[in-house]
Amino acid sequence: MKVAVIGLGYWGPNLVRNFLATEGIDGVVCCDVVQQRLDRIRRQFHGVEVTTNCAQLFRRPDIDAIVLATPVSTHFHLGMKALQAGKHLLLEKPLALRLSDAEEMAEFADNQNLCLMLDHTFVYTGAVRKIKEFLMAGELGEVMYYDSVRVNLGLFQHDTNVIWDLAAHDVSIMNFLLESKPEAVSAVGVRHFNDQEDIAYISVIFPDNLIAHFHVNWISPVKVRKVLLGGTKQMVVYDDMEASEKVKVYNKGVEIREDDSVLYRVLVQYRMGDMYAPNIDTTEALQSMAREFVDSVRAKRKPITDGRTGVEVVRILEAADRSMRSGGEMIRLAEHSFKREPVRLMLGSRVR
Amino acid sequence: MKVAVIGLGYWGPNLVRNFLATEGIDGVVCCDVVQQRLDRIRRQFHGVEVTTNCAQLFRRPDIDAIVLATPVSTHFHLGMKALQAGKHLLLEKPLALRLSDAEEMAEFADNQNLCLMLDHTFVYTGAVRKIKEFLMAGELGEVMYYDSVRVNLGLFQHDTNVIWDLAAHDVSIMNFLLESKPEAVSAVGVRHFNDQEDIAYISVIFPDNLIAHFHVNWISPVKVRKVLLGGTKQMVVYDDMEASEKVKVYNKGVEIREDDSVLYRVLVQYRMGDMYAPNIDTTEALQSMAREFVDSVRAKRKPITDGRTGVEVVRILEAADRSMRSGGEMIRLAEHSFKREPVRLMLGSRVR
Amino acid sequence: MKVAVIGLGYWGPNLVRNFLATEGIDGVVCCDVVQQRLDRIRRQFHGVEVTTNCAQLFRRPDIDAIVLATPVSTHFHLGMKALQAGKHLLLEKPLALRLSDAEEMAEFADNQNLCLMLDHTFVYTGAVRKIKEFLMAGELGEVMYYDSVRVNLGLFQHDTNVIWDLAAHDVSIMNFLLESKPEAVSAVGVRHFNDQEDIAYISVIFPDNLIAHFHVNWISPVKVRKVLLGGTKQMVVYDDMEASEKVKVYNKGVEIREDDSVLYRVLVQYRMGDMYAPNIDTTEALQSMAREFVDSVRAKRKPITDGRTGVEVVRILEAADRSMRSGGEMIRLAEHSFKREPVRLMLGSRVR
Amino acid sequence: MKVAVIGLGYWGPNLVRNFLATEGIDGVVCCDVVQQRLDRIRRQFHGVEVTTNCAQLFRRPDIDAIVLATPVSTHFHLGMKALQAGKHLLLEKPLALRLSDAEEMAEFADNQNLCLMLDHTFVYTGAVRKIKEFLMAGELGEVMYYDSVRVNLGLFQHDTNVIWDLAAHDVSIMNFLLESKPEAVSAVGVRHFNDQEDIAYISVIFPDNLIAHFHVNWISPVKVRKVLLGGTKQMVVYDDMEASEKVKVYNKGVEIREDDSVLYRVLVQYRMGDMYAPNIDTTEALQSMAREFVDSVRAKRKPITDGRTGVEVVRILEAADRSMRSGGEMIRLAEHSFKREPVRLMLGSRVR
Repeated sequence: MKVAVIGLGYWGPNLVRNFLATEGIDGVVCCDVVQQRLDRIRRQFHGVEVTTNCAQLFRRPDIDAIVLATPVSTHFHLGMKALQAGKHLLLEKPLALRLSDAEEMAEFADNQNLCLMLDHTFVYTGAVRKIKEFLMAGELGEVMYYDSVRVNLGLFQHDTNVIWDLAAHDVSIMNFLLESKPEAVSAVGVRHFNDQEDIAYISVIFPDNLIAHFHVNWISPVKVRKVLLGGTKQMVVYDDMEASEKVKVYNKGVEIREDDSVLYRVLVQYRMGDMYAPNIDTTEALQSMAREFVDSVRAKRKPITDGRTGVEVVRILEAADRSMRSGGEMIRLAEHSFKREPVRLMLGSRVR
Repeated sequence: MKVAVIGLGYWGPNLVRNFLATEGIDGVVCCDVVQQRLDRIRRQFHGVEVTTNCAQLFRRPDIDAIVLATPVSTHFHLGMKALQAGKHLLLEKPLALRLSDAEEMAEFADNQNLCLMLDHTFVYTGAVRKIKEFLMAGELGEVMYYDSVRVNLGLFQHDTNVIWDLAAHDVSIMNFLLESKPEAVSAVGVRHFNDQEDIAYISVIFPDNLIAHFHVNWISPVKVRKVLLGGTKQMVVYDDMEASEKVKVYNKGVEIREDDSVLYRVLVQYRMGDMYAPNIDTTEALQSMAREFVDSVRAKRKPITDGRTGVEVVRILEAADRSMRSGGEMIRLAEHSFKREPVRLMLGSRVR
Repeated sequence: MKVAVIGLGYWGPNLVRNFLATEGIDGVVCCDVVQQRLDRIRRQFHGVEVTTNCAQLFRRPDIDAIVLATPVSTHFHLGMKALQAGKHLLLEKPLALRLSDAEEMAEFADNQNLCLMLDHTFVYTGAVRKIKEFLMAGELGEVMYYDSVRVNLGLFQHDTNVIWDLAAHDVSIMNFLLESKPEAVSAVGVRHFNDQEDIAYISVIFPDNLIAHFHVNWISPVKVRKVLLGGTKQMVVYDDMEASEKVKVYNKGVEIREDDSVLYRVLVQYRMGDMYAPNIDTTEALQSMAREFVDSVRAKRKPITDGRTGVEVVRILEAADRSMRSGGEMIRLAEHSFKREPVRLMLGSRVR
Repeated sequence: MKVAVIGLGYWGPNLVRNFLATEGIDGVVCCDVVQQRLDRIRRQFHGVEVTTNCAQLFRRPDIDAIVLATPVSTHFHLGMKALQAGKHLLLEKPLALRLSDAEEMAEFADNQNLCLMLDHTFVYTGAVRKIKEFLMAGELGEVMYYDSVRVNLGLFQHDTNVIWDLAAHDVSIMNFLLESKPEAVSAVGVRHFNDQEDIAYISVIFPDNLIAHFHVNWISPVKVRKVLLGGTKQMVVYDDMEASEKVKVYNKGVEIREDDSVLYRVLVQYRMGDMYAPNIDTTEALQSMAREFVDSVRAKRKPITDGRTGVEVVRILEAADRSMRSGGEMIRLAEHSFKREPVRLMLGSRVR
């Protein structure tokens, strides 16, 4: 199996490195319009094949799959070309900038029996998978809230705002973790330097008093990537900036108590318990992701982060973006046409 | 000058301790309806005067001032009684649960030339005062955003939700720091254990693309008290949980650059610089607050956190509460009748 | 039971506050030669009894016990006076500056059936007691090393060096935790500002390849109080500067493996597991310590940190001090005349 | 210029990657006796040249330099072969396991005008270079102490103990930073799993009350890499585990004051000031190191970490190892035959 990676900016070289190291990959072709990037990638990977001609790649029969690491505004155009050429397709997040485009790509890939996969990298981290295990085992109880912060002094994108850039990660993590179906989305955001918002706060409303909230920010002086997940039994802090102990499970919570004292009645009390930080698989997420793509293509099965998961992420991002432009209006999400399939956790050893 | 502290639950004993230690205070009378609390306070402070009869306190001519540390739902009723009895009045935050009540108290105190002060404790911390100095000196540039998180596994209040309880602190800090006048407020929140919301997210919209945001949460497994304040010149992280270095100033930011490269044009770049953590005055904030109250009463001048600052905090909290109940509607703030007076920074040594 | 606290410098007021709050204490008399300190303590504790005449205290029949918080160089002289006057005696650490003095005091108190207790405060923290529980339950396996760091920009003592001041804490913690009997001690240290060493490194050698090491430092820019305790089964990090999660137990370790590969043979491999931070009792240690003193006096039994534990701490400190002065010579510890009694963990509820 | 990297275990592949990316390098040949490692390196770097025959490499005229990443016990044997074959030589630390071997290699390379360089990687980090700048500018005052901790649950070496493995890093950093010449070394250490010590504490004594101390440990549950450097003017904390702000400069210190109060005389007081974390160059240290090697070979000049610096590191490690085996004896260091040359800070742009 041979893949072509298109787009060698910030993230592309990481994809090249990981596909080169993935068993089952016979070759990687690297494509970019900037010659300087091709020179660098050739130095780095000792004469890997490069080209500036992306159109030709779609026509080459020896190339089985296209990996798109280009700016998101090109995803629909280039992605559809790849699919129409019969290539399997892996895209950087998000799938597209419009829900209708995302749905069209997912549907087209399904109809052509092509593998369409999103590089929702964090879904392949040991940390996120461990939290999912806890949730599936019922160890956290019912989820009460999901609070996510992803802020940094980051590279501004010229074709998207901070919601499409950063919240794409967080919504993909949340969608992987939570079973519940979101009902409404609101967001506020502001811009300071060009016409793209650089800070946004997104609220996602679920049934049964479950709330999710996302703070994304390109102009924070410090790098924070943290999730608080409050369950009725236990609570989780997932801090991706920790070198180790990225996931901490707190056996803490709230207990309802009857209390008859008159004036200062306290009906709700908290319960303190131990904290526990499970050992986390430290395999590079991008390596697991690349393997999942190769395995899925070969086994002709849906990858964990397939086109439909990409569509669901875009559904929330598009609603958030729309709410932000309207000044914070609460946007109700339309009924999903895709139904959620049970999440598969296991990686590897699935292909025989 | 003699003061009576009413309410000896969680916070009251701290007020007693600090007033006992304040020069210019001749006596402290302690009042609560729960005898057990009076016994404890007598043990702790070696025979300090106690009483369960709060009504009588208002009539005693030897008592100059009342300090209210009772639940917020009693503030208006007890506070007005104190003022009507001609006593100076210090209240725990917030001033009241209704804007109209807050305004009535502030106006009444003004008319009677009585000192009405709020214990917005954080305004008296070395950390907040240092940030104010930086802002006043123009070292941060224009403020672009104010992001505040105050979460903990905290005591549920039976008469208020998490907004009135926790955001009262943060809004008082923000109002002290920012010069700009907020235009609109929205909030979302949920409840899980009783009829009071235990999580809320509040957005406050200012002119000129300034945004403030507050995350308050009673059911977080970890205690976080952190503010990010982004200025166009420098940015501040104020982390109240740090033992030292609570305030960090980052000489980082964003720069606009022209760039003519074709596809991956990046117009906005970031600038990395040094970080600097100023030495902070570590005087106990409550001690400074108590001194400011005593000094203000004696000098017949407005304290830094006077009734009007209490009203402005309630204005935002009430709007946030209303927005939350409406499902996140953006509430425009009415024109303020009070005009903002220049903030006074200096404490102490003002009375001769 | 009435106690007199002598010495109201840095630590004394904390002892006064805690004895005032201890059940079974009828009165606290405060004594210092500096009038200003007496004035402050009277303001703080609302008219507590004070005196500058310490000699008279020893003669008062209403005073049952003396609490010494004076500089360590006065401990032997004042402590013996108190014991000779038939008073129970609680001393700040260390017991004395010479092993022979410490032994004389402990022996005298034993003979007179007086309670002699050391305020080895950390032994009464929830953290240290939790670690002891783990050790007693065998959960850590055999202890391989005990590494302790206690550094800060601290107050220089004029009558002792950093070993007697800071290492006294750490040696008392280690002696409480470890069952094994130390065999030899060496230390290096330097002085920079006066004739007292401000940095020292102490090594304590035990049988069976157990090593303990202490870094104490008065001129560190940051405050560190950390212990690493490596067991063959699990390892502990005790970080006293953490607001919560002071004790972390790591299910990590080393495994011996046979490996036949030729050149890069690795015989020893490490094992990664979960981390676990037990919920810790947050009772103020000084309160537990005061209660232990009162309970022990009333029950006529040895307190957990009795005179003999004080002697054992001085034994190691004296050897370390001697080694440091000799340029790092390894000093073998003499045979102990006192045999180690089983450690009692339980506090409170022992007196009926 | 073409280099051969011998030894592709843990560190070798990083050297291959960096030399491939260094300008001026025409080719990299990879050598190891384990075929599996060669296969992996070929996959990773897309067909880079590999061989199991290391002897042949020394004979190839197209190879200008040998890079040794083999176990330290092979350094002298393989290194001398490379030098005798007229190859420039870069070695992983430490240079050798015996001072006499180290001196012989350094002398031989000098006589043959070959470049002998040590990969003392940390000397090439932005953090260490920034601290050196502060020291050279006199901003820290006189250095009072240098305290280093490097602990981890690390891979046991089968041919060396923890001193040769870990302290080699720290001594190379210290030697780069400090101007003063060490006078004596003592060390204690213990072993638990095989015949190599896994924990050691090393003290290095300098003139003028300067002390350095190293804690190295292969069986710590947490990874710590921290240096405290106390100067008379300012103090530095260098924490290599911090994602950013690795170097913090504290404007804190100690001041001598006269004080006439009687009993509690305090003659030495501390001074609190601001903290400052300079922006650090984040270039990968190994990249700077590789460039320094290539530049030095081409310019025929001594690299920053030349053979003599390698000898000085071995001098201290050998003394520490000897002290440890003797039970902690203080070992006086012999007079150095090499005189210390002024440290060069600048990298790059030196070759025209």
